[in-house]
Amino acid sequence: MNNEQSITNKLINAFSALPGVGRKTAERFVFFLLKQPKEFLENFGADLKELPNHNFFCPQCFNYSEARTVCPVCADSKRDRAAICVVENFHDLNVIEATKEYNGLYHCLGGKIDPPEGITPDKLRVKELLERIQNDHIQEVILALNPDLSGEGTIIYLKKILAPLNVKISLLARGLPMGGEIEYADEVTLANAIKGRRILN
Amino acid sequence: MNNEQSITNKLINAFSALPGVGRKTAERFVFFLLKQPKEFLENFGADLKELPNHNFFCPQCFNYSEARTVCPVCADSKRDRAAICVVENFHDLNVIEATKEYNGLYHCLGGKIDPPEGITPDKLRVKELLERIQNDHIQEVILALNPDLSGEGTIIYLKKILAPLNVKISLLARGLPMGGEIEYADEVTLANAIKGRRILN
Repeated sequence: MNNEQSITNKLINAFSALPGVGRKTAERFVFFLLKQPKEFLENFGADLKELPNHNFFCPQCFNYSEARTVCPVCADSKRDRAAICVVENFHDLNVIEATKEYNGLYHCLGGKIDPPEGITPDKLRVKELLERIQNDHIQEVILALNPDLSGEGTIIYLKKILAPLNVKISLLARGLPMGGEIEYADEVTLANAIKGRRILN
Repeated sequence: MNNEQSITNKLINAFSALPGVGRKTAERFVFFLLKQPKEFLENFGADLKELPNHNFFCPQCFNYSEARTVCPVCADSKRDRAAICVVENFHDLNVIEATKEYNGLYHCLGGKIDPPEGITPDKLRVKELLERIQNDHIQEVILALNPDLSGEGTIIYLKKILAPLNVKISLLARGLPMGGEIEYADEVTLANAIKGRRILN
């Protein structure tokens, strides 16, 4: 293992590149892998090698697509084609999909408006969103952007340019997260929870 | 991504198998990898596939060896061949190597004595250790086992069977870890720190 170019060292370096993985953790991964069956490692390696050949954008919603065709969500005939949920990227899309609460289509913006970082609306897929709303008889647009500064800015911008389009615009509810404690909630969250309170009787 | 057998899903499952990695983290890894250059993924995958073909034990010290020959430590002519550091496995060996404080050889026991788990001395490489000590003119054996119950048990056992062999036996120092606070040290650690105190003048 003194050999800098040994296969374990190369793998430790590769794993260290993953987000949140330091050298110690990467070492643990590799020592764990050394004990795994040959078949597991061969499949794992083959899938990694294949990944670049299955990395496309859905031409409709810009979700990740494994082939040069529309993504599984857009291809699914059971989805409600009158609703578009606008997300920052396909990662957020997947998190929403996992809830199984939403049955419409998506639109991946590719980021949030962030002028200091040079991300202006023309760098995002805003034009494509407007075209879809106008051409595909969309009735509701859900703005599912992160409740942070640039997310709020993007929401304000989209609300403004969608206003003339005769489409219902909605936001994800803001309030206390499940398991959250009022005592420790920040003021904005608590204010949102009060504003959005539900009448029960 | 609804397709259970999609390549991303297969990779998420593979990463989830790593120690300490849950599904969310595995997803983050895969979404990160989707943004990496093709070359990185192909090398990463190729190295993983190759790993089973480079997974051997050193015939001398039972360290991990990439080829069917002695490991780099045993092959290194600059090492002190009169000292053996007994470790549980090659992971601990690597951690000790990283300190660059030790220049002797190693012996990987392959575990610790743990009768409730069925790990008796005959399941470990104790016989091989005795042979090396007797045949290779070893002068010092450092018992570098974890300071826990089964580690202490293994140390007691090894001390007993090494006693007749006319070899110096040593233990790693016990005491306060760097950055540790006396206030929060457990009693055993603190007792060890007092027992092992160094006279400075």
